[in-house]
Amino acid sequence: MENSKLIGEYPFKVLPFEVDFRQKLTLPHLTNYILNSAGYHADSLGFGIKDVKESNKSWVITRLAIEINRYPKNDEKIRVRTWVDKVIRTFSLRNFAFLSQDGTEVLGYANSVWAMIDIDNRRPTDLTQIIPSEIFCDEPCPIAKVGKFPAADVDEFDSFSVKYSDVDFNQHLNSSKYIEHIIDSFTLFKFSKRDIKRFEIEYINESLFGERIAIHKKEVEAGKFVIELKNQAGTTICKSKVLFSDQTLNEEYIIK
Amino acid sequence: MENSKLIGEYPFKVLPFEVDFRQKLTLPHLTNYILNSAGYHADSLGFGIKDVKESNKSWVITRLAIEINRYPKNDEKIRVRTWVDKVIRTFSLRNFAFLSQDGTEVLGYANSVWAMIDIDNRRPTDLTQIIPSEIFCDEPCPIAKVGKFPAADVDEFDSFSVKYSDVDFNQHLNSSKYIEHIIDSFTLFKFSKRDIKRFEIEYINESLFGERIAIHKKEVEAGKFVIELKNQAGTTICKSKVLFSDQTLNEEYIIK
Repeated sequence: MENSKLIGEYPFKVLPFEVDFRQKLTLPHLTNYILNSAGYHADSLGFGIKDVKESNKSWVITRLAIEINRYPKNDEKIRVRTWVDKVIRTFSLRNFAFLSQDGTEVLGYANSVWAMIDIDNRRPTDLTQIIPSEIFCDEPCPIAKVGKFPAADVDEFDSFSVKYSDVDFNQHLNSSKYIEHIIDSFTLFKFSKRDIKRFEIEYINESLFGERIAIHKKEVEAGKFVIELKNQAGTTICKSKVLFSDQTLNEEYIIK
Repeated sequence: MENSKLIGEYPFKVLPFEVDFRQKLTLPHLTNYILNSAGYHADSLGFGIKDVKESNKSWVITRLAIEINRYPKNDEKIRVRTWVDKVIRTFSLRNFAFLSQDGTEVLGYANSVWAMIDIDNRRPTDLTQIIPSEIFCDEPCPIAKVGKFPAADVDEFDSFSVKYSDVDFNQHLNSSKYIEHIIDSFTLFKFSKRDIKRFEIEYINESLFGERIAIHKKEVEAGKFVIELKNQAGTTICKSKVLFSDQTLNEEYIIK
């Protein structure tokens, strides 16, 4: 099949509550666009979250890498394109491209890895029987996949408790809220000078309402941070990498 | 003019990241719909945030009361109607109605009070010279306005720091994030049994990035809470009231 038929494309308009103090879309809200687009596309192909629930399964995202050339601004309309790259046993690899409204500017790319788990026993499903290879799409997504994470072998930097607004319908810390808590470990001053150029996360364990989560954050190179979230038992719930742009922004923000 | 011409109506679709573990739209996200609708309507009348910025002014919300009969669910499409009730010197009174997609069911109402302030000296503007009385609309909004707040004269219940994701373009804690932090002082167990029937907030002071905010929460009657947020100096930044439904929900939620 032609790539154009295998790619789902969804429009989004950046809303005021989705932007930061610089009027730029935040990474957790971009992640919501990513998750929504993946959901719409899977629905259109007949293996969305409602379809697979009938056989007591659910989709979980396990890895996500995002690279951004330019963050869209308040009121800007963008297009999110998504397609299934391929399936490797229990994993589905799904890519994304973010485009300006007229389609001429690539704002960035993302790639992700998903598993379909049994709701009761959390075991992964063999996806080769479920997702036909006819829908695999070789559209280029020229960014690296999630790589190895250097250890965040430092003391706790901060912590938070998982609250009502943090949890999804499974009562687990929701996928974009992991990212919100990670990004919130940086100051406004940092964002006044740099953009996040690349972000990577590996979701390792779920976290329930009321759990206290420790944030371990280490600058492994100039502008490159490793951030790990751990629960009270010391179990890692996710690992992430945040890479800030080399260049100081050509924008002036006065931090109050 | 006819009321129908004075009322702005805006469609919203409830997205997965806007719902709680019960698949119901959360109050902070409903507040985002309220703020967006107010913005769209003011824009259409020529006194939106971009218009008034030309004379170095900005809109701030000072009071908001919301009453909900039924919370919309994930994927549900709703309509938000809004109109200017009237102007009293430096205050504009704006009402809202939330309707089902087909318009036959009223999901709830809200009323709000706004001031237009000078960006530099924060002084309010005489709105009688700016908003013509021809646009006032007497459409009914049958819920009480924000009332008096009993004192939350109790020790600190919890606290939070104002982070990157909490602040708006003014670098202040944004209006719906006040509500998110207030609502997050309740447990999943509470929401598994009751809905918030009525919510009131009075915005008193702004809060900047990095400030530590204390939450004071007191149950003044069964199911009726007063919650006050205070900064490190002990200054109250907002007062709120949360009233839960009398009836236990006819829905089963098992809290993990």
